[in-house]
Amino acid sequence: MNDVIKTIKNRVSLRNYKDMDISKEDLDIIIESAMEAPTAGNMMLYSILVIRDQETKEILSKSCDNQPFIAKAPVLLLFLADQQKWFDYYIKENVKEYSEKVGIDFEAPQESDLIIACEDALIAAQNAVIAAESLGIGSCYIGDIIENYEFHRELLGLTDWTYPITMLCLGYYEDDYNRVHRNRFDKKFVVFEEKYRQLTDEELDEMFEERAQFYVKTNKYEADNYAQMFYAKKSGADFSKEMARAVRVALKKWTGELL
Amino acid sequence: MNDVIKTIKNRVSLRNYKDMDISKEDLDIIIESAMEAPTAGNMMLYSILVIRDQETKEILSKSCDNQPFIAKAPVLLLFLADQQKWFDYYIKENVKEYSEKVGIDFEAPQESDLIIACEDALIAAQNAVIAAESLGIGSCYIGDIIENYEFHRELLGLTDWTYPITMLCLGYYEDDYNRVHRNRFDKKFVVFEEKYRQLTDEELDEMFEERAQFYVKTNKYEADNYAQMFYAKKSGADFSKEMARAVRVALKKWTGELL
Repeated sequence: MNDVIKTIKNRVSLRNYKDMDISKEDLDIIIESAMEAPTAGNMMLYSILVIRDQETKEILSKSCDNQPFIAKAPVLLLFLADQQKWFDYYIKENVKEYSEKVGIDFEAPQESDLIIACEDALIAAQNAVIAAESLGIGSCYIGDIIENYEFHRELLGLTDWTYPITMLCLGYYEDDYNRVHRNRFDKKFVVFEEKYRQLTDEELDEMFEERAQFYVKTNKYEADNYAQMFYAKKSGADFSKEMARAVRVALKKWTGELL
Repeated sequence: MNDVIKTIKNRVSLRNYKDMDISKEDLDIIIESAMEAPTAGNMMLYSILVIRDQETKEILSKSCDNQPFIAKAPVLLLFLADQQKWFDYYIKENVKEYSEKVGIDFEAPQESDLIIACEDALIAAQNAVIAAESLGIGSCYIGDIIENYEFHRELLGLTDWTYPITMLCLGYYEDDYNRVHRNRFDKKFVVFEEKYRQLTDEELDEMFEERAQFYVKTNKYEADNYAQMFYAKKSGADFSKEMARAVRVALKKWTGELL
């Protein structure tokens, strides 16, 4: 097994960080690695916010579903899907007037532009994660950054054509940190040959068999099985409703209005 | 520079592949690396289709904006955002009836569920890319897989709650392959401290200065500058319109219908 595969397999999501700042040298390597990531048409449709300010970290630790460890990470990297820079450049270079002249539509960014920019941002984020890991720096993705859209927009100075798609907490592993790897689903339920195939009830039973053991009969959700318990805890929970609301609000803008 | 950073920095998007199949051993390592990727709540909201069938590859090379090299890659990995498995599991385990009993909503997957699943899928895809690179296997992302949604759905046996967010072409580098690294934008236009900041006209000029040299005065688009030429070639082009249409169609389903 080469060092790259070892690094990938060794990584766990880290929520406890050594009390030590991230060196400028290491952070530069992480960010440069992110910037080497593949990007659609070499457009780099993302921006990275480096957040070290303690007050901002405290605020984000609350606005991202109350996870205090976020404020304890020495550095947060916030990845924005960013169509703002290209859009501003187009406006500045009279692409609107040009479009009228040659008879093509000049449109504001739309859903597909958001998706493509999110792809760029996420691919770059995972490069950062792997690079960090190779330097002894652990990471944790904060998917909850997509909640409270309006609030985060104000807090971080975002604009119409930037969208906070994910956030990484970064910090060094503690010296004696005990890595606990969580089991993934079996490959046969994740990987399919040539075509997708919906799983049968029997296959679903097998897929979830190990996890279903985490079901506890006396639970505060009055759930009769693991699926019900998990649904109540996750998909049916408040943070999940907020996520749904916030994404819907953000998406409203990306409709490709004719300009 | 450690081997991981070297691998990340050395990678280029590869569109010419050595005439050599990918070994089962290498493909297993790539897929297992993808499956080690961080995933929201350990839910693994994705599936991977392994496509080797020549006919399917030919079809995809046409439906993904006519890029013949796609058909020449020995293996395609198609990454699906997948909420189908969890949804089916919930249905099977009577989460609908449970939700009624305890008075919470049971909803079909919605926009936020699609976004979160896309995140999982893309993060896994980039792990596959890095792992492949470390094995001498090059890759190219095909963002165009989000075009022709209805056609790809039929071709690949997709369901309501699966979405083809990206595709990778994989193949070994040719022995004497000359890697050409494309310049990225300068870091100061991509990385911001603490908050986002919209770039000034002067900064945009500087950001695009190098690229603007690719503008050719006599161009078939009748464009007066690089921005206009690029817009006509990309955002204003047919494949881009198809992408916008297809994403809009796909998104229509993900509205969290109350079940």
